[in-house]
Amino acid sequence: MGAALHERQWELSKPTNPMITALFSDLYQFTMAYAYWKANKHLERAVFDLYFRKNPFGGEYTIFAGLEECIRFASAFHFDDSDVTFLENSMPSTCEGEFFKYLKSVDCSDVEIYAIPEGSVVFPRIPLIRVEGPLLIAQLLETAFLNLVNYASLVTTNASRHRQVAGSDKMLLEFGLRRAQGPDGGISASKYCYMGGFDGTSNVDAGRRFGIPVRGTHSHAFVSSFMGIEDITERSLHHIDGDDKCYDFVALAQDWLSRLQATDSFRGRFMDTNHSELAAFASYALSFPTKFQALVDTFDVLRSGVPNFCAVALALHELGYKALGIRLDSGDLAYLSKECRKIFTIIEKEFNIPGFHSLVITVSNDINEATLEALNKQGHEIDAFGIGTHLVTCSSQPALGCVYKLVEIKKKPRMKLSEDIEKVTIPCKKEVYRLYGIEGVALVDIMQGMDEPAPKVNERILCRHPYIESKRAYIVPTKVEKLYKCYWAGNSVIAAEPLPSLEDVRSRCKSQLMAMRPDHLRALNPTPYKVSVSRNLYDFIHCLWLDEAPIGELH
Amino acid sequence: MGAALHERQWELSKPTNPMITALFSDLYQFTMAYAYWKANKHLERAVFDLYFRKNPFGGEYTIFAGLEECIRFASAFHFDDSDVTFLENSMPSTCEGEFFKYLKSVDCSDVEIYAIPEGSVVFPRIPLIRVEGPLLIAQLLETAFLNLVNYASLVTTNASRHRQVAGSDKMLLEFGLRRAQGPDGGISASKYCYMGGFDGTSNVDAGRRFGIPVRGTHSHAFVSSFMGIEDITERSLHHIDGDDKCYDFVALAQDWLSRLQATDSFRGRFMDTNHSELAAFASYALSFPTKFQALVDTFDVLRSGVPNFCAVALALHELGYKALGIRLDSGDLAYLSKECRKIFTIIEKEFNIPGFHSLVITVSNDINEATLEALNKQGHEIDAFGIGTHLVTCSSQPALGCVYKLVEIKKKPRMKLSEDIEKVTIPCKKEVYRLYGIEGVALVDIMQGMDEPAPKVNERILCRHPYIESKRAYIVPTKVEKLYKCYWAGNSVIAAEPLPSLEDVRSRCKSQLMAMRPDHLRALNPTPYKVSVSRNLYDFIHCLWLDEAPIGELH
Repeated sequence: MGAALHERQWELSKPTNPMITALFSDLYQFTMAYAYWKANKHLERAVFDLYFRKNPFGGEYTIFAGLEECIRFASAFHFDDSDVTFLENSMPSTCEGEFFKYLKSVDCSDVEIYAIPEGSVVFPRIPLIRVEGPLLIAQLLETAFLNLVNYASLVTTNASRHRQVAGSDKMLLEFGLRRAQGPDGGISASKYCYMGGFDGTSNVDAGRRFGIPVRGTHSHAFVSSFMGIEDITERSLHHIDGDDKCYDFVALAQDWLSRLQATDSFRGRFMDTNHSELAAFASYALSFPTKFQALVDTFDVLRSGVPNFCAVALALHELGYKALGIRLDSGDLAYLSKECRKIFTIIEKEFNIPGFHSLVITVSNDINEATLEALNKQGHEIDAFGIGTHLVTCSSQPALGCVYKLVEIKKKPRMKLSEDIEKVTIPCKKEVYRLYGIEGVALVDIMQGMDEPAPKVNERILCRHPYIESKRAYIVPTKVEKLYKCYWAGNSVIAAEPLPSLEDVRSRCKSQLMAMRPDHLRALNPTPYKVSVSRNLYDFIHCLWLDEAPIGELH
Repeated sequence: MGAALHERQWELSKPTNPMITALFSDLYQFTMAYAYWKANKHLERAVFDLYFRKNPFGGEYTIFAGLEECIRFASAFHFDDSDVTFLENSMPSTCEGEFFKYLKSVDCSDVEIYAIPEGSVVFPRIPLIRVEGPLLIAQLLETAFLNLVNYASLVTTNASRHRQVAGSDKMLLEFGLRRAQGPDGGISASKYCYMGGFDGTSNVDAGRRFGIPVRGTHSHAFVSSFMGIEDITERSLHHIDGDDKCYDFVALAQDWLSRLQATDSFRGRFMDTNHSELAAFASYALSFPTKFQALVDTFDVLRSGVPNFCAVALALHELGYKALGIRLDSGDLAYLSKECRKIFTIIEKEFNIPGFHSLVITVSNDINEATLEALNKQGHEIDAFGIGTHLVTCSSQPALGCVYKLVEIKKKPRMKLSEDIEKVTIPCKKEVYRLYGIEGVALVDIMQGMDEPAPKVNERILCRHPYIESKRAYIVPTKVEKLYKCYWAGNSVIAAEPLPSLEDVRSRCKSQLMAMRPDHLRALNPTPYKVSVSRNLYDFIHCLWLDEAPIGELH
């Protein structure tokens, strides 16, 4: 059966990163697997929950991402001969060879995976993924699942927070590849930032791999590589309408620079522009006459970069082209953007060039959520943000602490205690519902045992805090949404959901955020969303807790 | 020539992550490449420096890592048809088809790469890598080189800082795979933490891929998966000497637990241990009698986990085996480790078991550099640390800001200015020397132009701060070390250094740290190491600066 399953799904659905094999795991998963096998427990039916305990970035929401990669991992999960040989050599020589033979036969055909759809808004303690299967196999999925969900959800949430602060009308571009934590930190960051609401990426590989729009112009090195106008050997450009005449584009740009320098409104501010920069811009415009966008801070933004850019843009305009705009990569971005806009506006009036005032101003340079907030407060004229380091490394909190806990075995609920209440697990295989209030707004998520009837629309239900006795509320939902779908059915008769496209997941994320009360989403002092358990589950947890915990003694 | 080069080196030296191809790059590298080609500048000989501006983690040193991956990338660098097709479709339709044909022919056969050896202690502004080659190709290496060096150097430095604080006698294990930023954040973290001084990893894949020692025991789920002693169906164990007699190991462990409970020294503290935990430990010991190590905090460390562990360890001892020790994953680790040690010591005396007091105490649970400091201050009995999240995500500073700057083209020095002095580049193709003082201690790194004679032992040389006129010092070095070696020679006649093994790089890192003055390395208020330029280079930089910068006007 396993073999047939592999033949059917293997090639289609491997994880994106080919380095992820069944050995992409912690050693203790294999020592445990051996001990389960030795104790003849390896086929016991187990249920594991994957969840996190705290929203990241001081916020009150998280976007769930990484599910597709988990399902791909499960679908491709198997051990080849070299995997097993390596394990055999890594484990004590007392281990029995039969175990390693057995490993070669395992796969996920007896596993079922239920999950909240990828791109959903999710909350602490609510399992994002529920894995059911033979104890040994379900255990072996832990490390990869955590790795694939933790960073994916973290960076998607980070991207969505940047989008919340920037507003829906700004262009957000992910520029993080060079600063990401390793190669596929970069590649997956591009994917998940797009999922979380970014418009594009600089990362060409991610563009090809995931179909994300790719953006970029030039760097300081391009400007520095020019010595002066004499570097440009081929100076001619046709009018956009393609008439036969060739224009000396460089002369045109130089001419426009002179006209700008002579303009009363600029009172001689542009007399000292850098000539090698002008050459670089003219050369770039000759290469990309329809897409001219220039980085203007190699020497001095307002005294050199912007006048040089404007001269080239005006020369392009004379030949029927439209420049795109500028990028700023240093300095006081709010101030500079306003000054640049003023210059564009003066030029629009002075030379009667409709639309020149609205050239796109893009900024980059260590931007994070707080910078966006500060820029909003100061007021600015920025149209697009290129965000790298802080976005992709999630610098304000670089890890999400998802965990993977056994909650049931052989239909018996299991629970892990801890002196830290946050670390106590919620036992039982559970169903989760999201309950909506009178304005179609999500009010509370409720976990309950599988045997309990689903909450019903217009029927009052008691929602209890999982640990704190006094926290509870009655709710009469206007809508009840069952959160889990089956995404991997193994060889069972259940029909698994197809995995949605990246565009669909991105849309889901957007619409889910729109359905949340804004006070849960805001950056400053957000309101916690309520996560609850049913009356029955509450009682059950607390009985089991008393049962399992040793009674303290004070000395 | 390009083709022959590929045939020779292609298979041997691809980057570890097969996702890294020539498209692993920012789009602007390709728009610039096109503009260079259009301006007929693409073959101009260019020199780029890769360096960082500030040491990470508030420290005063950095370990350089990632070089091998860069060289592998350069060696495999080429575009196949599908790469080029994707680029052609991503760039404006005005771009000429000849360019894309040309791209198919480029590789690194005309490139030379000089670098400081991987695993070296390095400092801000000193180029770690110097790339020389045709402008277009040297430009196209930027993004991948930065990605491959930034995180590698950051996490290696982080690991080395953890080692500095923990001391050389503690076992340090990297447990970060599940929390790393993406799959190869995890895999490369394991490699670079080992390079930086860790002893092993939990990551099985990294163990196989890089030959790093792999470690691990079991998780809470293993304990939770047992209901009670009745779960253990096969209870027998032979004496380690392999005599024919089979012992009921579970009965032995239960017997030892009773004896512990009855021991006066423990005054009835162990009366309420959890039976399912005892079952889990006994079962684990049956599977790994020679490697028994138990996670003791599933229910209660001192009232349940430790007495259960000791009962099983004593049963093993009775059959001639030696338990390894325990792992603590929550609570006050300093206090608990001391209490555990007390219990082990009492047992050693009470039952005359030599060595029982020195069972290994391993701890995990969100440990970082500060936790290690705090534990040292409090005093503890910990032998080994399992460190994950904060180590691999480098949470106190999750990105190193390496940059890649053009410093020379057609033998003409180039410089990028900035209002922020830290962002001004140091022009020229440079040679770098490390000068040592009287006790064989590194004193200063000095950059100078290629045409300047190397500093000489016992000859006085002036070392100048690159930007601040008043900061300068004479030095009479006792040893002069040229820092760069050629690691990639393309098809030139230069002989490239072979890439050292991971073990060699790890040793280099260790010995380099030993050669540094300890005050540069300490965590609290470390002394900055001096980075300087020669008198000639200083003068040259400041002439060029005045030449390039527009003169300000105050209004």
